[in-house]
Amino acid sequence: MSKDSISSYGEKALIERIINASIKRSSTVNNTYLNRIGDDCSVIRYLDRYLITTSDMLIRSHHFPDEMTYYDMGFKSVTVNVSDLASMGAKPLGFLLSIGFNGDLSIDDFDDFIDGVLSACDYYNIPLLGGDTNDSDDIIVCGTAIGETSTEPMMKYGFNKGDLVCITGKLGLAALGFQLLNQEVPSDGITISESINKALKPNARLSEGEKLLSLGVKTATDITDGLASELESLLEADKKYSDSINGNVPYNKGIRIYENKIPVDREYLTIVDSLNLDLYELLFHTGEDFELIFIMPRDLKSEIEKYLDFYVIGEVTLNNTLEIVLTNNEIKTLSGMGYEHFKL
Amino acid sequence: MSKDSISSYGEKALIERIINASIKRSSTVNNTYLNRIGDDCSVIRYLDRYLITTSDMLIRSHHFPDEMTYYDMGFKSVTVNVSDLASMGAKPLGFLLSIGFNGDLSIDDFDDFIDGVLSACDYYNIPLLGGDTNDSDDIIVCGTAIGETSTEPMMKYGFNKGDLVCITGKLGLAALGFQLLNQEVPSDGITISESINKALKPNARLSEGEKLLSLGVKTATDITDGLASELESLLEADKKYSDSINGNVPYNKGIRIYENKIPVDREYLTIVDSLNLDLYELLFHTGEDFELIFIMPRDLKSEIEKYLDFYVIGEVTLNNTLEIVLTNNEIKTLSGMGYEHFKL
Repeated sequence: MSKDSISSYGEKALIERIINASIKRSSTVNNTYLNRIGDDCSVIRYLDRYLITTSDMLIRSHHFPDEMTYYDMGFKSVTVNVSDLASMGAKPLGFLLSIGFNGDLSIDDFDDFIDGVLSACDYYNIPLLGGDTNDSDDIIVCGTAIGETSTEPMMKYGFNKGDLVCITGKLGLAALGFQLLNQEVPSDGITISESINKALKPNARLSEGEKLLSLGVKTATDITDGLASELESLLEADKKYSDSINGNVPYNKGIRIYENKIPVDREYLTIVDSLNLDLYELLFHTGEDFELIFIMPRDLKSEIEKYLDFYVIGEVTLNNTLEIVLTNNEIKTLSGMGYEHFKL
Repeated sequence: MSKDSISSYGEKALIERIINASIKRSSTVNNTYLNRIGDDCSVIRYLDRYLITTSDMLIRSHHFPDEMTYYDMGFKSVTVNVSDLASMGAKPLGFLLSIGFNGDLSIDDFDDFIDGVLSACDYYNIPLLGGDTNDSDDIIVCGTAIGETSTEPMMKYGFNKGDLVCITGKLGLAALGFQLLNQEVPSDGITISESINKALKPNARLSEGEKLLSLGVKTATDITDGLASELESLLEADKKYSDSINGNVPYNKGIRIYENKIPVDREYLTIVDSLNLDLYELLFHTGEDFELIFIMPRDLKSEIEKYLDFYVIGEVTLNNTLEIVLTNNEIKTLSGMGYEHFKL
């Protein structure tokens, strides 16, 4: 591997490179849009609305475990894109699907895949608008979701000291589920099936996202790369935003989460322990849960509780770090080491 | 290859299968959108406008000749999607790019590719909104373009007996260009460089598409799969549309084109002859020219001539066939055998 191959860059560095290349051009292209490249979706102010768009590529050998059925692959291909809309609070308008399959694929497997896609479109009430099919060696799925909001969408930035950091559901289930696919399962409890289900059949928190936006929440993202990495990306986005509006004020916001606020069942701990897995790795660094993280002012809490279940796991500080208070009250820095493509 | 593998189906048959699967569902998803799947883009009626979206996947080993630079690959990735917008007469709103690269790719090649993408975005005045990067074996590019029209976009259907069939530029240049990449070039005339340029650096007819729509043209598509195949798809779409509004009236429209109206330079013929290539294959069955075919009532001709160059190559008939009148006045059926993925 030569030192100037892209494998020595992470995905974020490559995206940053695209943004910088664009800013350098004396371009007719409106660069303000590109600032959103770091968010879950891009946003276009359109008439009196906001158009929200996102595109994700999934490659079987990288993104789908072997145990996944074609139906589940099809369903998840919609979910990953809809989850990005959810994180902005957008109402879906349509879904486009470009797929590449090897010609050897059986027509039954093709039909199952499409059945999964259409079932997901029904589930999220998002029309399948079109797309194309291609001949490829590996299975490649590229989905694009388009949505709208009538007010400014939830972004990764826009929070203040004392705001509460919340998640819409339990963490680490998908992470455990992926591990269980490769193991002798030690028991058959609820956590086992819940975890495997979450790994193979995740759902996006679409209605929760729309509700949060309508109740006044300004900041959210979905957990695809792991909690630590997502929290770090919220701080990065907020710093970038803050620098753009008041460049010479030093940025000092941080996020503190509490280990004892992270929702974990006793059964989950037992299984993790019996399989000798790294609990922190599962909870903080794996992702794929498709839960939403959102940050809200404290005074919104009681109103939001009326409409949806969520867990408060931390708060915004002014100490410039992302940290976790362990159950023994020790405070540790939590570094965002979620999965990054390319980075070795 | 088993008889039930997808390789025994063509791309059109697979798309048809997706549409039928969707229609069969008692679905909350609005199937009317899916009828558009056979068109170049999908259309959503949105507020007082039409949102036009399209998505295309390009895989290096299938879609990019080895001779293509990374810059040209990047540029063409935008062009293929913008060309679909052009065929609807849409004004571009934004472009999303999901790319897969092997980690071995040099950062210089990556930068060249992005430079091509951004140059194309500038050229077409379409903002790069976002996307993602992935680790893949082959180079995979999935682009999505979003555009709008304020009146009903040009579709593949909606023409009548006597209407004129027109193209916005010469045919077969890209097709010859691809051949020349693999050959000792017999001369260095204008056609040679024009052809190679068209193969490696094609441009979409974006402004022409917008102009045609604004002047009242209702029917258009872009030539990606070859003229014969595109003309056949216009007839198929028009029949489908006609059946949907008056199901029990037999459909009998056809298209007749004239060999002596097809714009071909003498130099082009000489080169094709000297290389022993099949002229009809190049002109009618290869595509990749990204010119627009449009069909218009005769009385629009003089008005459109004021604004853009085009060639009238044929007319709409009522004899239910796609045919070509050869220079010797013989009439032959023209079958649409353009490139189809999967079909063996």
